[in-house]
Amino acid sequence: MLKKKDAYVVAVVGATGAVGVEMVSVLEERNFPVSELRLFASANSEGKVMQYKGKDVTVHTLTKDSFAGVDIALFSAGGSRSLEFAPIAAAAGCIVIDNSAAWRMDKDCPLVVPEVNSHHLKDIPKGIIANPNCSTIQMLVALKPLHDAAKITRIVVTTFQSVSGTGKKAMDELMDQTVALLSFKEPANKVYPHRIAFNCLPHIDVFLDNGYTKEEMKMVHETHKMLDPDIKVTATTVRVPVFRCHAESVNIETEKKLTANEARAILAAAPGVIVYDDPSKNLYPLQIDCVGKDDTYVGRVREDESIENGLNLWVVSDNLRKGAALNAVQIAEELIK
Amino acid sequence: MLKKKDAYVVAVVGATGAVGVEMVSVLEERNFPVSELRLFASANSEGKVMQYKGKDVTVHTLTKDSFAGVDIALFSAGGSRSLEFAPIAAAAGCIVIDNSAAWRMDKDCPLVVPEVNSHHLKDIPKGIIANPNCSTIQMLVALKPLHDAAKITRIVVTTFQSVSGTGKKAMDELMDQTVALLSFKEPANKVYPHRIAFNCLPHIDVFLDNGYTKEEMKMVHETHKMLDPDIKVTATTVRVPVFRCHAESVNIETEKKLTANEARAILAAAPGVIVYDDPSKNLYPLQIDCVGKDDTYVGRVREDESIENGLNLWVVSDNLRKGAALNAVQIAEELIK
Repeated sequence: MLKKKDAYVVAVVGATGAVGVEMVSVLEERNFPVSELRLFASANSEGKVMQYKGKDVTVHTLTKDSFAGVDIALFSAGGSRSLEFAPIAAAAGCIVIDNSAAWRMDKDCPLVVPEVNSHHLKDIPKGIIANPNCSTIQMLVALKPLHDAAKITRIVVTTFQSVSGTGKKAMDELMDQTVALLSFKEPANKVYPHRIAFNCLPHIDVFLDNGYTKEEMKMVHETHKMLDPDIKVTATTVRVPVFRCHAESVNIETEKKLTANEARAILAAAPGVIVYDDPSKNLYPLQIDCVGKDDTYVGRVREDESIENGLNLWVVSDNLRKGAALNAVQIAEELIK
Repeated sequence: MLKKKDAYVVAVVGATGAVGVEMVSVLEERNFPVSELRLFASANSEGKVMQYKGKDVTVHTLTKDSFAGVDIALFSAGGSRSLEFAPIAAAAGCIVIDNSAAWRMDKDCPLVVPEVNSHHLKDIPKGIIANPNCSTIQMLVALKPLHDAAKITRIVVTTFQSVSGTGKKAMDELMDQTVALLSFKEPANKVYPHRIAFNCLPHIDVFLDNGYTKEEMKMVHETHKMLDPDIKVTATTVRVPVFRCHAESVNIETEKKLTANEARAILAAAPGVIVYDDPSKNLYPLQIDCVGKDDTYVGRVREDESIENGLNLWVVSDNLRKGAALNAVQIAEELIK
């Protein structure tokens, strides 16, 4: 476990990626007690300089010796690097908070959204804490208070996920393809198997034997691990030509009846949730409005008339912040409380 | 009822709109027996010349006298114009096939998708047949064969609808906003209440008292009228920054169990449906691939593991063709059979 100190040596692994950049800025914004910030990335980024609280911090190549003296390491460098380096970091004595999928389903690694299950942080056998998948995080921030109030029995979710979930290269691809199309040129696909500009791809992460994608099954398994293994979940995850923030159409069935007004009141009182729901004024959460926001926005709250006890919700959050960097830093904040 | 002839005088009302243009080209492509084509639109388009089978046809302003001698009138000029002019056209002796929402729920107006309920065309008391909403048409083309095989009890649908569903002005708005953003200019909203470029709007048509939009309730009511009033339906309809074709994430519960393979086999044998479903080759229906296609494409067929008997489907079709113009012309083809 982490020794309490006035300030901590914090490492960001994958510092130059879309999430890594956001991690550095979230640490700064939230004034996390950092005595020293160390930035690591692949050899390509060696010597790159980033800013933290007005000072230059040089990015170094990640090696097995990177973690000496580090208290907390925030990883966002992909699954294979996490598999290799997170145990090395933990053995060197630091607590790893890993944003990849590598450790999420390991029973010895807590998978945590502070608003949902911070009590899972009591025991960290491997010294590794997993940050959940972005699409699961925002869904559970919105559903936890409703589950507490009315016990959710089933979730049918369809996502509208932005390209930043794939990373910087995918954001460039959406931009490049859009420019190419507007210039009557043939757009190239490098990151995605098909064109994303002016198109939706019902395909996120790899396909599994049951016909679902890994992304879809993450929403099932992570909900079970964090919220309740008895909730039935089915998901369809779709990439949309939006740069940042994910939206989700979430249909839930509950044991107890909740009216839309009751649900809105419960959500309005919940941590990390903003209810933004006034159809008479065309107010509902939009991806472009949630960029850089910390909260999860919920709107379009409606009673599902097709079942006895059901609700439809539209849930939007910044996938790079609450969906990744912010949630990781919030876990670190829980650790030092 | 329509008198059988070798060829018919056909009018297209709203000929210069996105759907009207498509109606003219579908009539030509399918070689509908047209003895004379008359094109009508608002006064703004008076004198405009369109092409039909290599010949010029002049667009005239719609008036009360436009329908003398017309056998079949295809309307796509908005609800208020349909409310006013469809009865005038019917009184002049022609059969109206109306693409607006104006007559859809009138019990004396059949609402028809030929693959689903062509038998409803036996009785046309008012001389007006309604063409269903685009998002309902493609959903029911895909669901009718599954309903016949396994009796659908509930549908949870979330749509990804292209801007062409709103019309030509909305297609221009998506283009103009995209260009503005790429030029670092402030994009203007004229058609939609919020920016559509690089954004998704969970708002199609107007909001109703129950919190749903009209578009969402159309999917409920039209499914009941055309397919089965006992099917429970809940819908979330979303506009996405795509020019043409609608996609739908459709979750169904059935009385009888269908495996994914059984569902694919049933769909492959159904009229108007193409199964396009091979995840191992990254094959699934895409909006950009369905432009100009007549069929409804179904992929991502998966058993829903959250309930006993359920399936998830991804359904894509060209909203201007099967979702509007083609379906209207197919209704006309049924009438002259």
